[in-house]
Order: sequence, then C-alpha cells, then structure tokens
Amino acid sequence: MDKLPASLPRRRLLAGTGATVTAAALASVMRDAAAQAAAAPATAAAPRPLPPYVNWKDANSLIVHSNTTIETRRSAFGTSIVTPDEQLYIRNNLPAPDASIVADRDAWEVSIEGVRNPRKLTVRELKSMGLETVAMVLQCSGNGRGYFPSKPSGTPWQVGAAGCVLWSGVPVRVVAEALGGVASGMTFMTGTGGEKLPEGLDPKSVMVERSVPAAAMADALLAWEMNGVPISLAHGGPLRLIVPGYTGVNNIKYVKRLAFTAKESDARIMSHGYRISPPGANGDPSQPSVQEMTVKSWINGPGTDGKPVAAGTVQIHGVAFGGMHAVTKVEVSVDGGKTWSTARLVGPDLGRYAWRQFVLSVRLPAGSHTLVSRATDAAGNLQPEQRLENAGGYNNSSWADHAVKVVVA
Amino acid sequence: MDKLPASLPRRRLLAGTGATVTAAALASVMRDAAAQAAAAPATAAAPRPLPPYVNWKDANSLIVHSNTTIETRRSAFGTSIVTPDEQLYIRNNLPAPDASIVADRDAWEVSIEGVRNPRKLTVRELKSMGLETVAMVLQCSGNGRGYFPSKPSGTPWQVGAAGCVLWSGVPVRVVAEALGGVASGMTFMTGTGGEKLPEGLDPKSVMVERSVPAAAMADALLAWEMNGVPISLAHGGPLRLIVPGYTGVNNIKYVKRLAFTAKESDARIMSHGYRISPPGANGDPSQPSVQEMTVKSWINGPGTDGKPVAAGTVQIHGVAFGGMHAVTKVEVSVDGGKTWSTARLVGPDLGRYAWRQFVLSVRLPAGSHTLVSRATDAAGNLQPEQRLENAGGYNNSSWADHAVKVVVA
Repeated sequence: MDKLPASLPRRRLLAGTGATVTAAALASVMRDAAAQAAAAPATAAAPRPLPPYVNWKDANSLIVHSNTTIETRRSAFGTSIVTPDEQLYIRNNLPAPDASIVADRDAWEVSIEGVRNPRKLTVRELKSMGLETVAMVLQCSGNGRGYFPSKPSGTPWQVGAAGCVLWSGVPVRVVAEALGGVASGMTFMTGTGGEKLPEGLDPKSVMVERSVPAAAMADALLAWEMNGVPISLAHGGPLRLIVPGYTGVNNIKYVKRLAFTAKESDARIMSHGYRISPPGANGDPSQPSVQEMTVKSWINGPGTDGKPVAAGTVQIHGVAFGGMHAVTKVEVSVDGGKTWSTARLVGPDLGRYAWRQFVLSVRLPAGSHTLVSRATDAAGNLQPEQRLENAGGYNNSSWADHAVKVVVA
Repeated sequence: MDKLPASLPRRRLLAGTGATVTAAALASVMRDAAAQAAAAPATAAAPRPLPPYVNWKDANSLIVHSNTTIETRRSAFGTSIVTPDEQLYIRNNLPAPDASIVADRDAWEVSIEGVRNPRKLTVRELKSMGLETVAMVLQCSGNGRGYFPSKPSGTPWQVGAAGCVLWSGVPVRVVAEALGGVASGMTFMTGTGGEKLPEGLDPKSVMVERSVPAAAMADALLAWEMNGVPISLAHGGPLRLIVPGYTGVNNIKYVKRLAFTAKESDARIMSHGYRISPPGANGDPSQPSVQEMTVKSWINGPGTDGKPVAAGTVQIHGVAFGGMHAVTKVEVSVDGGKTWSTARLVGPDLGRYAWRQFVLSVRLPAGSHTLVSRATDAAGNLQPEQRLENAGGYNNSSWADHAVKVVVA
C-alpha cells in the first residue's frame, strides 16, 4: 500500500485547502478489494487504494491498476449518458503535475504557434474569446487490451478505460482565426503537455506531445470545464486540448503549447509510441498512429456484478459509439453472436462523438447465457467480431472479446 | 454551527461505510463563509456548514440556508448542460429518512394503486420492466423567491434552487400497462414520499403527497439513477417519481406509493401548500396548484463572482428552459432590457425538458452594466418582464428580477 502523506489535495483541487485520508476511506478500499477478489477473480492487478490526487473518486466504482492507471468497473457504469467525474478512468503517461497549477486557473498560459500572429494566451483570455460544449467519448488507446490473449505489455484494461464526458471551452478554430489563421503549409495540430519531466532524461523521450491532422481542429476545443466544473488536475486542468473522436492520448492534458506544424512531433510518444505494429515488432514512424476511434459497443448489465440474474424479462443495456461517426444501430445477441436482435437507443442524443445507451428487453430462462452487442455507425461500419492483432494491444473493438457471461437463476 | 457526529454517511450513501468530517472541510466552509461575506454582502442567510447527509457536496458551490434548504451559487454554475450532483440544490420538506433505506436499494418497495391489478413492486422488479433516460430541469417551486420585494415566508432562493439533471428508470406508463392499465375514472397521478413523519402530528398535515394530472404519466419515470449513479439519499434515493416539466415538490422522493386517483390528495402540502394565492392570503384548494414550470432564463456569467470583468469582448452565458416546451430563442440585453440581441444556444440539446446553455459574444466598455436575458419557448411564450405576485413567492420567472449588474474595469 502507498504511503499516505499527512496532507492531501482536496476534491478536484479547486482551491488549496488540505483534506485527510480517513481510516474509513481506507476501510472502504479494503472492502472494495475483498469484493473485487470475490466477484472478479480474473482481475490481474492486485487491489490498491486510490492515489492521493484522485482520492475524491469513488473507490467502489474503480479498479486501480497503478497510481496512473485506474479504470471504471463494468458493473459501475450506470444507464445514464454522461460518466460522472468520480467514476471516470485515469491514465496518465507521467505523474500529475503539482497542484499549484490549478491554484490560479485563469493565469495558465498556452503558447499558440504556427499561426500568422503567434502568441501566448491565458485561460482568462481564452474565456473571453468563445464558448462551445461538446460531448465526447474519452477512451484510452489500450482500452480492451486485457482481452488480447497475447497479453501485450501495458495496462490490461477491460471496458473501463472509457467514459462519455462533457467538455466546455473555446473552439481551436476560433483561437486560430483570432491570431490570423493557420500559417501556410501546416498540416498537423500538435499539442504539448505541461507535465514536469523527470530529470536526467532526454525530454523528447518522455514528454507528452502528440500530432493529429490539422483538419481535426474543426471540432477541437481548448477546454477548461468538464461535466460542468473546472477540469480537475487529474483530468488535465486547468486546460486540456480536446480532439473529439480521437483516443485519449491525443487529448493533451495541462496543454502548454498548441502548434500548427508542418511535420508530426518527433517526441517518442508520437514517433514510436501508440503505433499499430505487428505482434512482436516495436513501433516506428512507418506504422499507423493510434488516433481516430472506430465503432464499438459493450454490454454493462445485468449480471456484470457477478450476482445471479433472476429468470424472466431482463433489460440488457450497454453503450455504443462510433468514434468519428454517430451510432445508428446496435444489435444484441443472447447466444454468443449466433442470432441478433436490434436494441433500442435510450435517452437524449449528445451528438456524434458521444456514446448512446442501448437497451434490449428479452426473456432469459434459467441457465448460462453469453451476451454480446455490436454497433453500426452512420458510415455503415459494423463493429467487427475479431480484434486487429497488434503488439501494443490497441484499438480493441472486437464484439466477441467484449462478451458477458451471465448466470440466470 | 451544527454539532458534528463522530460517524457520518459517506459519499452518496452507496454503502454503509462511515466517513469523517475533517478539520480541513470545516476550514473550507469557514473560508467559504468569508468569501461569501466579501463577495456577496447582500446574501441573507448566515453562512452554515453542510449538514452531514450532504457532506459530500461542494461547499464552495453552495449557499446553505438551512439543513434542508441549500442552493447553488450563481457563480458556480458552469457552462455545461448537466448540473453535477455535488452542486445540485437541496430542498426537503422533512428531514431525510435514515440512511438504512439505501443499504439495499433493490429491496425498496413501491405500492402501485389505481391500476387494474394493484400490487407492490420492488426496485429489483422495476429494473426488469423497462428503461428510459430523461434530462429534466429540477427546480424548486420557490426558486427566485428572494427577488420578491414582499419577502414572502420561505427560503429566499435566488437562481440556485434549480439544476438540469439526468434521470434513469422505468416509464410510469410501462408499469401501469404491466398491471393492467389505469383503472377507470382515475384522473390524477398521486405520489407519496417515504419520509419518516414526526410523531404526535396528524400525518396528513406533514406528509409529502402530491397529485398531478394523470396525463403527466406520459413522460414520468420511476427513477433509480441520477446523473449516472444510484440516486443519493439526499435526492430521493432509492426511488424517485420524476414528472418532467413539473416543479421539484411534484417529484416525490423515496416514493413508496404511486396511485392513480379520482381526486387530488387531501394532504395539506397539496390542498393548502404550494398554491398561487393573492398576496396576504393563505393557500386553499380553490387556487391554482404550483405544478407546471414556465419559460425562464438567467445569466450565470461573467461577473457573477463579484470580481471585476476586463473591458473588451466577453462571453455572456446562462441557462434557459421552457418547462413543458423546448426553448427556441434566448435574447440578451446589456442595458437592462432596453435593447436585445439574440444569443446562440450552445452544446447538445438534451430534449424539451432540459435547459440549454446560451452565449452572446459582446464588447463591453469600462463601466457598470445591467445584463438580462429572456427566453421564448416552442409554444411562443415569452419570458415575462415582471413576476406574478403571490403570497408564497412561487414561480418567479421575471427577467427583470434576474438581472445581473457587472462592473467592467
């Protein structure tokens, strides 16, 4: 168990007040660990308490793989359309910066480069320039890695390195226009994170800097708010680059530089990390980068908590999203994919980058059943049965891998 | 200051683990109080700490009028479209029931009456019957009472006894159909709360029981989830009757009975409470009941935190809703209502019962400005300039009352 400092950052670090980890919170973690061991013996990671910078999260909803890799339990996903902050997964490539950076959020500066009139802008200035809100599935590139039989190195995420989140901020295109527009020849949008880098290493080998096609700026935001409150330090506050439809790593936390560039970043996380390389091979710049998400769905209930389901009518529910396109159809099978029924999409539609909840009402007799779902997006893409094998265990959208076995009593 | 028990319910009371109020939390409240006194000297209520059953809320976002009446600060409303649980207002007519009622949520029973085959249903059974999600403005009937010059008795709410919330549950119509349909002659839908009533009083004089027209069942839910998690005790978990478009009191917490009835409830909260009575008069059954909400909007920023706004372009933002109808237009004035400009609606549309965020980009020179907004709904109703005077201080939708004075430096 981690050593607990005497004084820890308080909920969301909106201010500098200290809070204290209580014995009760530790008891909660211990009980959680016991429940996890009982209900999900296959979970690889040993149960761990929440690290201090996210001690405001709901331990019962989460699986702590490490201090910087924490996922939402499948059974904790509700049936609603927005993932609450206290359940949202954590994946940081480096430890979170010091909480002092959210002490005066409006003073945070981002350097805008590769525009005709480059300059630094504070969050205060950004807030005066424009406002937009987007709902977006935030999903780690490696979500579903835990289902790769090849056991790639990296966190063995199941379904929970994903959530649907509301972001508010200023559109990147508005900022670029205000600074004279993108300079000619700049075909990439490159974001650089404000992490404090470990000393003694080549910065390029550890810094978080990612490039996406400049066209992605059309829907991108420089965001200061998540789910209605200032973005927590854990999720990239005071300012995060949001690139709807792109995997988590492309959404740069504590963004300190947003540059339109002629070339992709040469930081290692871009050139060699997050590449779709063949099994056994290392990543390199010749391979596709992990960027745009594709159509995917999974079932969240009933029965994912390991408790037996009562025979009779059940409401099978889950989430579906298209990445770059809206979801248009979700099918559910209760026989492992032999036969399919069309599910109903539930609740308000938050737009093409959001996920939809789906539900199928079906009678299940006593016995064991394998539930699966598959989604279709507006471009006609059907969620595939099989994963695309790759060394990093990225982009697992296989419906077969995401099957749920439930016992009906 | 309230006496703090040694062991308090933990966040959301999802389980029985205790938590502890820390010195830091108290310090936060004290600092909050100091900030409140400095920034908003006109606030009527003396600063108070959060009561134990809502100690998981964000004290900095709230004004505590009493242990059962707590509102969101105007400056804490973000620019997003869903109000986070920890910022949502509290208004309970009676103290919250014992936390034991959320220890086994699925076992909670509601008696369904006034249908052909009346019976009790557990939450577990309800979950097997259907699933729907609705976004709805939850607003206390007395929100805006603080702007009545007549100072009606009751909490002097400003704008913050309201929020936009996601609810998931089973449609009431699905439940009624499953039990054979509504019995003939039943023109009201009556919900009864599961509060523990004070002893020694006539139950009818204190119980929370409200009737709405039976037609309201069309969009009503028996809900077990709010904003993606099981409904907290403070907000009516384990089960709440949700009647979209109707003021808060009609959305019965800990609902233990849902009856289709031939007459309105004769509980005092229905017969004499929440009536639109002339100034100086008491409520009685001959007067209109406070039920359906009407079109309303207000500005949440900038400048509502009392800090001076920098001269130049600003993004004036706020929320607008129609009650029973979608909002179609919002206008903003920076001269107290003499001239108006049409604002832009921001972010995804969560449906007709939800609120929309709006924004107007405008240049403000140095000086003092009076910002106001007025909304129009899909039925053509325009938010009125003046409140409807009434003894209870209900339904204040006056745009003039909701003006914000900002100082631009």
